[in-house]
Amino acid sequence: MSRVVLIAVGEELLTGTVVNTHSAFLSHELLSLDLEVRAHWTVGDGKDEILQAVRQALQEFDIAILTGGLGPTEDDRTREAVAAALDLPLELDPESLGRIRAMFEALGREMTPNNEKQAYFPKGSEILLNKRGTAPGFWIQIQGKAVCCLPGVPRELVPMVHDQVKPRLLKYYPPLRKRRLLAFRTFGLAEAKVDTLLKGVKGRFPFAQWGLRAHYPETHVRFLVEASNEEEIRRRVSEIEEGVRELLGDSLFGKEDETMEQVVGILLERSGLRLAVAESCTGGLVGDRITNVSGSSRYFERGVVVYSNEAKAELLGVPKGLIERHGAVSSEVAQAMAKGVLARSHADLGLAVTGIAGPTGGTEEKPVGTVHIALADKDGIDEKRYRLRGTREQIKLMSSTIALDTVRRYLLHRHPERSEGSRGAERGGDASG
Amino acid sequence: MSRVVLIAVGEELLTGTVVNTHSAFLSHELLSLDLEVRAHWTVGDGKDEILQAVRQALQEFDIAILTGGLGPTEDDRTREAVAAALDLPLELDPESLGRIRAMFEALGREMTPNNEKQAYFPKGSEILLNKRGTAPGFWIQIQGKAVCCLPGVPRELVPMVHDQVKPRLLKYYPPLRKRRLLAFRTFGLAEAKVDTLLKGVKGRFPFAQWGLRAHYPETHVRFLVEASNEEEIRRRVSEIEEGVRELLGDSLFGKEDETMEQVVGILLERSGLRLAVAESCTGGLVGDRITNVSGSSRYFERGVVVYSNEAKAELLGVPKGLIERHGAVSSEVAQAMAKGVLARSHADLGLAVTGIAGPTGGTEEKPVGTVHIALADKDGIDEKRYRLRGTREQIKLMSSTIALDTVRRYLLHRHPERSEGSRGAERGGDASG
Repeated sequence: MSRVVLIAVGEELLTGTVVNTHSAFLSHELLSLDLEVRAHWTVGDGKDEILQAVRQALQEFDIAILTGGLGPTEDDRTREAVAAALDLPLELDPESLGRIRAMFEALGREMTPNNEKQAYFPKGSEILLNKRGTAPGFWIQIQGKAVCCLPGVPRELVPMVHDQVKPRLLKYYPPLRKRRLLAFRTFGLAEAKVDTLLKGVKGRFPFAQWGLRAHYPETHVRFLVEASNEEEIRRRVSEIEEGVRELLGDSLFGKEDETMEQVVGILLERSGLRLAVAESCTGGLVGDRITNVSGSSRYFERGVVVYSNEAKAELLGVPKGLIERHGAVSSEVAQAMAKGVLARSHADLGLAVTGIAGPTGGTEEKPVGTVHIALADKDGIDEKRYRLRGTREQIKLMSSTIALDTVRRYLLHRHPERSEGSRGAERGGDASG
Repeated sequence: MSRVVLIAVGEELLTGTVVNTHSAFLSHELLSLDLEVRAHWTVGDGKDEILQAVRQALQEFDIAILTGGLGPTEDDRTREAVAAALDLPLELDPESLGRIRAMFEALGREMTPNNEKQAYFPKGSEILLNKRGTAPGFWIQIQGKAVCCLPGVPRELVPMVHDQVKPRLLKYYPPLRKRRLLAFRTFGLAEAKVDTLLKGVKGRFPFAQWGLRAHYPETHVRFLVEASNEEEIRRRVSEIEEGVRELLGDSLFGKEDETMEQVVGILLERSGLRLAVAESCTGGLVGDRITNVSGSSRYFERGVVVYSNEAKAELLGVPKGLIERHGAVSSEVAQAMAKGVLARSHADLGLAVTGIAGPTGGTEEKPVGTVHIALADKDGIDEKRYRLRGTREQIKLMSSTIALDTVRRYLLHRHPERSEGSRGAERGGDASG
């Protein structure tokens, strides 16, 4: 398998001003190509450092992909350094120069002379078109090895990797095996529990590598599936999918990049039900997440953030006496909030969250992290208490995810169109206060 | 100046499963120590790769700091690799073994034999205490060069860098100059504008390096101040602070890690005023951000997320006719929302946001990114229209920041206790619809 090194260029990386996300992005993209990324290097803007890195890369690896240092300023020295490392002269590419000129014209900005630099490339380079910026990339194939240089601006880099880099990698380093990356997202089980459940997969799918990644408060699972042909890949992928669904059950909420709020949105749209939300400790985060999904206005009717007791009483009709008797963070108040927001809106479901996000405000009986979540429909109400841990923002995030997950599980099992009988009853037993 | 390389160890980094944030963190921490981080390397879990990296590090650099690969599993090979690279035997440290045993006992968990491995160190190591995990780090000083190995778990790494690593770096590589890192946060000026304004600083503060960093939608500014003694550092720091305040004016909203919502919170507490928020396109994000600040219940009275027109009418009293005439995204509706939430709450300030976050829903007259923000107090109302660009989430984030910034500027200039006369009038001129 061809070995790859990723070289990120930039002083801002060495000072810690910017986190290097390019190398992780590229590594991830290259996983499915039957290539082996064996090192990430970060170097500064100096011509010599870049030159040394390229020379060493060509000794140890088959492919070096550099990001950054292609811009017009004095600090951008990647092209000179690479040319020097490979003993190649820099040559003007008139077509690229024309494109850079046209880009400035289109923006109505003056093109300063230093921008011309971006149209020079080591002799023999393939130019990598950059539709979103002035600095094209370039690719040099030399003695069976490849040096690829890309701009460091993420919005330029990402499409270039897809349109320019991956096709060339496939051409020059054709994969012997097919690879497919599968990603699953789970919520509701501890990472160790997911690990244990999936250990069973190891025997059934010996052809796949897998790994877990905690992505608070979710746990993500990845499988790298290999096979010699497309048909076998497809069969293995569906075998794994089926196996994972069986092992993880409802804790598996999404695939690939799907977010919890997208999944909830899809289920709400499908059900035709509208949701109203009453938030206390999450402060608006549940509404914020729901409305991150385009089209959410079709199913998100309204939200109220009832931080004060007056707001709970006035906006939701939660009796002041109830708050005085049980406290704002209680089973009773959570239920009254859910019922209140349902009754006073045009929604079909009322979701409520009340809790103590901390770091202050906890008591012995109700420590920081005590959160009540309730979901009401016209027939009744489910309510549950949680004891969460973490910082204020972690408790808010976890609470909002549990709230969304509560809606997801309700829609999976309760709504008549998707009812599965016995599970509805099981879930009823969850409501414990 | 001593030259440093940071080496991150782990397959999960090379597959792109995890982004390497350790190197940026360490780089940042080392900035103030008069050391020069000149490279970041990432290698896999293999003993040979780690060994080669350490050998090469010692040829090119004075200090190598490794993170990861110190755990109890077979994949954790950093200690063996470093010992081999330095030709040192591994020796048991009974004290560390005792500490690991005690840690398992305290957790009530059985200590499997592989955990003993974590008590072995290359001969001559200084042990770096790890209070939050079972794997201690170690430090080897050899021929004027240093190799430092740390666990890869962030919550263990961070305190160890502060308590164990920095003191040793100061001891073995005493700084010749004092350094201080200053950070400022700005909002409301384009990055290029901040750059131009601060160019003036270059002449006045030749002793400081500075840099900008876009942190959407904010721009952050950093200064690295150097001097030969503490007194001079302090004088220079206050000179820079004064200069930056003068050049950036109100666009400078915070220092160091201060967030916009923290600054707004401080100003609200100081003023004794309470805030109520009516959100449409931001969907709860403004409330979420305000309530990320502990103690926000003292000044955040309530929020409503009025995604539907019914909700705008019922919760805020926005006349349906007004919405029909002007549209839900309009100057008139924004003002009615701000007045409505003020009148129907117990707050002193009513903040409203309505807009089109996209990607759909735009028209020629009101394209995606059209956002109206209004702030009402008992005496009147300020309202302004913005045309924002970006993805749905970027438009939501930018809108929420403008909304918070509107409150910040109001409190800086309008509230009697902090009134500065003429500026209040200027701001009035901003309200354009």
